Amino acid sequence: VTAGAAPEPPVPSVAIAGLGLIGGSLARDLTAAGWRVLGFDRNHATARRAHEAAAIAVGLDPEEPALDRVPLVVLAVPVDAAASALRAMLPWLPADAVVTDTGSTKVGIAAAADQLGLADRFVGAHPMAGDHRSGWEASRPGLFRGARVWICAGNARPAAVELVRRMWSAAGGHPDLIEATDHDRLLAWTSHLPQAVASALAATLRQAAVPPDVVGPGGRDTTRLAASDPDVWTGIAMENAGNLADALDALSARTHRLRDALRNGDRAAVRAFFVEARAWANEGSGPSVGPFSPPSP
Amino acid sequence: VTAGAAPEPPVPSVAIAGLGLIGGSLARDLTAAGWRVLGFDRNHATARRAHEAAAIAVGLDPEEPALDRVPLVVLAVPVDAAASALRAMLPWLPADAVVTDTGSTKVGIAAAADQLGLADRFVGAHPMAGDHRSGWEASRPGLFRGARVWICAGNARPAAVELVRRMWSAAGGHPDLIEATDHDRLLAWTSHLPQAVASALAATLRQAAVPPDVVGPGGRDTTRLAASDPDVWTGIAMENAGNLADALDALSARTHRLRDALRNGDRAAVRAFFVEARAWANEGSGPSVGPFSPPSP
Repeated sequence: VTAGAAPEPPVPSVAIAGLGLIGGSLARDLTAAGWRVLGFDRNHATARRAHEAAAIAVGLDPEEPALDRVPLVVLAVPVDAAASALRAMLPWLPADAVVTDTGSTKVGIAAAADQLGLADRFVGAHPMAGDHRSGWEASRPGLFRGARVWICAGNARPAAVELVRRMWSAAGGHPDLIEATDHDRLLAWTSHLPQAVASALAATLRQAAVPPDVVGPGGRDTTRLAASDPDVWTGIAMENAGNLADALDALSARTHRLRDALRNGDRAAVRAFFVEARAWANEGSGPSVGPFSPPSP
Repeated sequence: VTAGAAPEPPVPSVAIAGLGLIGGSLARDLTAAGWRVLGFDRNHATARRAHEAAAIAVGLDPEEPALDRVPLVVLAVPVDAAASALRAMLPWLPADAVVTDTGSTKVGIAAAADQLGLADRFVGAHPMAGDHRSGWEASRPGLFRGARVWICAGNARPAAVELVRRMWSAAGGHPDLIEATDHDRLLAWTSHLPQAVASALAATLRQAAVPPDVVGPGGRDTTRLAASDPDVWTGIAMENAGNLADALDALSARTHRLRDALRNGDRAAVRAFFVEARAWANEGSGPSVGPFSPPSP
């Protein structure tokens, strides 16, 4: 190396376990950003398709993933499969490799990583991007562009956190630190409650024998999430059961108040309901959500 | 007229009272389709802007709308203003002119038309198209393209019904007959419940101090309707209070069941909830909705 010339930075490399909507999209974006991406999926055919699409440089055997000296491993599997996937991967994990995930809940996987002795190199992550479709077929470039990515540092060493932040920035996301318990409580409201509400509306319409094609454009938006994968969401809801139940109670208090106002012909109360809803919709960016504590309903 | 040559059909003409999102968009489409459109709005400036935009041929004085010999008059005002607007227009209404409306509820305005002696020439209508924005500024061409338009014939003479159908077809909509009581019950589920759910979710998030910008793309879709005009929706909800309260009760039964399943750690019940929701979302066109009777929850 000539004095004064900075050494060429090594090509960053990463292994992604699970090439579905999130893992597949991340593989596409990181490869496009110049990263060397290894990938595997319990479904061999998925890794083959990802390789054919040039989204990954190398497809690994999911039974014996030769992770070699990869410095960063991403678990992109459903939340209720993450802990066991991590355990299964342990024998293949390079010493000092940083491990991260992409799940919608963060407390459970952090506890599992702790238990496996990975506390200093596990960094939880959760991109606020997705789709009601799932699987490799639903993956696409740019899914994370401009999306907030929650990062739960836990007890990981700073360099591990930095590597995960760098990966998400390379994929176009905006990393933002949050504690795992705050994350799960916040997400119960910002993501899991909307999913539950959309699903409850869809199930209610089904029971009432109202088919989707008589619903107007507004109703279609409100129920879009109902098409989400039931298994993915069962896992998320069970992982975050207490927080989601609290959020559902708060929602029920609202719908009951509206129902009572309608039964009582209380126009002022009905109007107040819609006024408060619009006030929220018209809010710009709100207060910091770091120390988040929703009031009881 | 030469024998054998059909007489040129007269240019269809219509007067539209209220040039907001619905009336303004209808004016644009009918003008584009070759209709002669007269328009007025309680706000004089709105009619002027519609005229400048060439959406209407003539702007009328809302206090003294010289309807002349217009054969068709459309009330495109909020549902709770429709009856009084109709009453105020009565002195100006040409004998035999057909009257129609665009409101989200149909029982109340039909009763008002009956009471004013217009039963044989009032035809209720309701396009399943809209937006959370309102007013002339939100109006646009093509809003009704491909949209179902519910037509409540009531006791109107067939030619009156035919004229209203023809108008909506000219605007790109698909007219479909329904009884007014069936319409209001159906709409409680397909439109008013989704609006109430989106608003309840938004109000719940506001109470929990969760600002809109931390909600992900799915949550944004689910809450999009919350930005709707509170006054418009107070009117609709009050007009359809009983049906909407029934629909809210059915929804609450669902959210309670999910809440209980979460509190009890009942994974099978949680999964069944999401499975049923997706089953609805994956339904194609459903059974006929003519004789619609939702089961009790």
